[in-house]
Amino acid sequence: MKFRNFKLTGYVVYGNGSFDQLGEIIAPKRKDNAPMIFFVDEYFRDKPDFLNRIPLEGQDKIVIIDVTHEPKTTYVDKLRDELTAAFGTVSGIIGIGGGSVMDMAKAVSLMMSNPGSSADYQGWDLVKVPGVYKVGVPTISGTGAEVSRTCVLTGPTRKLGMNSDYTVYDQILLDPSLTASVPVNQRFYTAMDCYIHCVESLTGTYLNAFSKSYGEKAQELCEEIFLQKNNWDSDSDEKLMMASYAGGMSIAYSQVGVAHAVSYGLSYLLGTKHGIGNCIVFDKLEEYYPEGVAKFKEMVKKHNIDIPQHITKGLTDAQFDTMINVSLGMAPLWENALGKDWKEKIDAKKLRALYERL
Amino acid sequence: MKFRNFKLTGYVVYGNGSFDQLGEIIAPKRKDNAPMIFFVDEYFRDKPDFLNRIPLEGQDKIVIIDVTHEPKTTYVDKLRDELTAAFGTVSGIIGIGGGSVMDMAKAVSLMMSNPGSSADYQGWDLVKVPGVYKVGVPTISGTGAEVSRTCVLTGPTRKLGMNSDYTVYDQILLDPSLTASVPVNQRFYTAMDCYIHCVESLTGTYLNAFSKSYGEKAQELCEEIFLQKNNWDSDSDEKLMMASYAGGMSIAYSQVGVAHAVSYGLSYLLGTKHGIGNCIVFDKLEEYYPEGVAKFKEMVKKHNIDIPQHITKGLTDAQFDTMINVSLGMAPLWENALGKDWKEKIDAKKLRALYERL
Repeated sequence: MKFRNFKLTGYVVYGNGSFDQLGEIIAPKRKDNAPMIFFVDEYFRDKPDFLNRIPLEGQDKIVIIDVTHEPKTTYVDKLRDELTAAFGTVSGIIGIGGGSVMDMAKAVSLMMSNPGSSADYQGWDLVKVPGVYKVGVPTISGTGAEVSRTCVLTGPTRKLGMNSDYTVYDQILLDPSLTASVPVNQRFYTAMDCYIHCVESLTGTYLNAFSKSYGEKAQELCEEIFLQKNNWDSDSDEKLMMASYAGGMSIAYSQVGVAHAVSYGLSYLLGTKHGIGNCIVFDKLEEYYPEGVAKFKEMVKKHNIDIPQHITKGLTDAQFDTMINVSLGMAPLWENALGKDWKEKIDAKKLRALYERL
Repeated sequence: MKFRNFKLTGYVVYGNGSFDQLGEIIAPKRKDNAPMIFFVDEYFRDKPDFLNRIPLEGQDKIVIIDVTHEPKTTYVDKLRDELTAAFGTVSGIIGIGGGSVMDMAKAVSLMMSNPGSSADYQGWDLVKVPGVYKVGVPTISGTGAEVSRTCVLTGPTRKLGMNSDYTVYDQILLDPSLTASVPVNQRFYTAMDCYIHCVESLTGTYLNAFSKSYGEKAQELCEEIFLQKNNWDSDSDEKLMMASYAGGMSIAYSQVGVAHAVSYGLSYLLGTKHGIGNCIVFDKLEEYYPEGVAKFKEMVKKHNIDIPQHITKGLTDAQFDTMINVSLGMAPLWENALGKDWKEKIDAKKLRALYERL
């Protein structure tokens, strides 16, 4: 198929305080005695005021999700096995948290009705059966995971998502007020996941008017709240949540570029998380994205953000080679960034020099 | 519910030439011997080159849709009865055309599985059963009907849509190249349906960040192609199709205003079509939308568009009163435009003066 037939989330509700509509929204999806399972980011573990707002009924259960590491297939399978043992089946999975929780909820929803291990489905369109009803409630903005058709998992042999139309959420609930208490640095790293994606896709060679219009809007919103405005307020939270949504939608007909290709190497070797990893890399990419990087540096300065430096210091040649190989394996990203002749523009030597600067 | 839970179209495919993927896209939705029915705008009646591109199979049928008048409930019921008599059931309805065809395809899809007359379902959430599979393929941009949850119908007692989550398309196919041959005036009137909506919603008192971001993008795209650019090309068609989509999405949490409230009166009395009616009215709304109307007049001048004048000349007092009553009945539109105290700002006398200027 020449143009991707893009599956959209089923429903979206957007607004400050919309979280209090969650119970009403999921009510028609409850099946007999099968509970709703709420996957909640460990950030909320000790926040009873928030936990008490979750609309529990009957056998419903809150499962606190450990986000120390990015989601693993073993963790997905374990939670699936526990839920199956306890309840047989469930009415739905509601993910409440950051990108890792968004991805865990999608993955476990799919694995409630697909046999085997989630590792069997890492790839494109390998999932053949819809999962149970699933709802995404992001509590930090920027990942775009609320609208994407993937859930990135680290498996026994690779880090790769379960990409499929069935992976898309049936419902998303976008309540910007849930993001108000996110720590400043974390908010910035995650927002930049969106901003950097936009810079990469809008300057890339893959792109059409659909993705361009979403990408431009997301980028404009990020620049407004991080550069033009002088204080952070609820308007900023609202706009950043829309930037995340629009950035996620722009993925339909676009591709990321150098920052993602390089940060995948970091993530593979060092376990660097996605948001901060992209920031560490993008900070050194003046050559590829002069305008975007200049604005990024302005934002970092204005918000007094800490971007880690020298994280590759002391690595061995073998370790550098590992990162370089992972990165050069991301051919579509390099092609999007540098064109069909990308192999003439980037090689192991040049990439080593870049990794050494990080 | 405080915030609307907005149903999105199931799938969207966007791109020049994507129409040639239609056969592949609908193939999995074919049921045994039940045909796919293609509702095609009468504009294409004598265009065999286009008709031959429609992916007919087996008993599939093309039904040319008469768009002389805006869709009527009697027309919907008649087509439903004919299809039921001929085939029993159908696999799906594919609407290919302008706003009227978009709405006819939605309505007939719903009436293939809901008993009685379509007039029984004019209102909000009266439809209780999903229709047959339905696909929207717009061939003119601006109405936003491709993403809306209504299909406006003129019934025995009122002009009102079948508003429901089931009304939303399962699939839309956005191929800007299909709009390349639309006559200049018609293209303008329909584009202004989008532009005027954006001006009304962005200056209105109902609005949140979700609708604002979509509305701003749609407005910006319209201004770029109608004011900044000096020629019309495929890039313009691409951007106008995205403007229509974004304008339609912005409806989620916004409302139209004075132009729509006044033009409904014209439409009710004189049968003035929606796009041109909005232009006729908006042209005289400097008082309410000074900036938007100034830009609109620039666009009209730049593109040498004919906006009909003096269309209410010679109407009787009773006829003016009819229009005034229809218009003042649209309370949410006036409230959005003028605030909660709108009744202190507009009355029959002032409205009569406005209608006389049209």
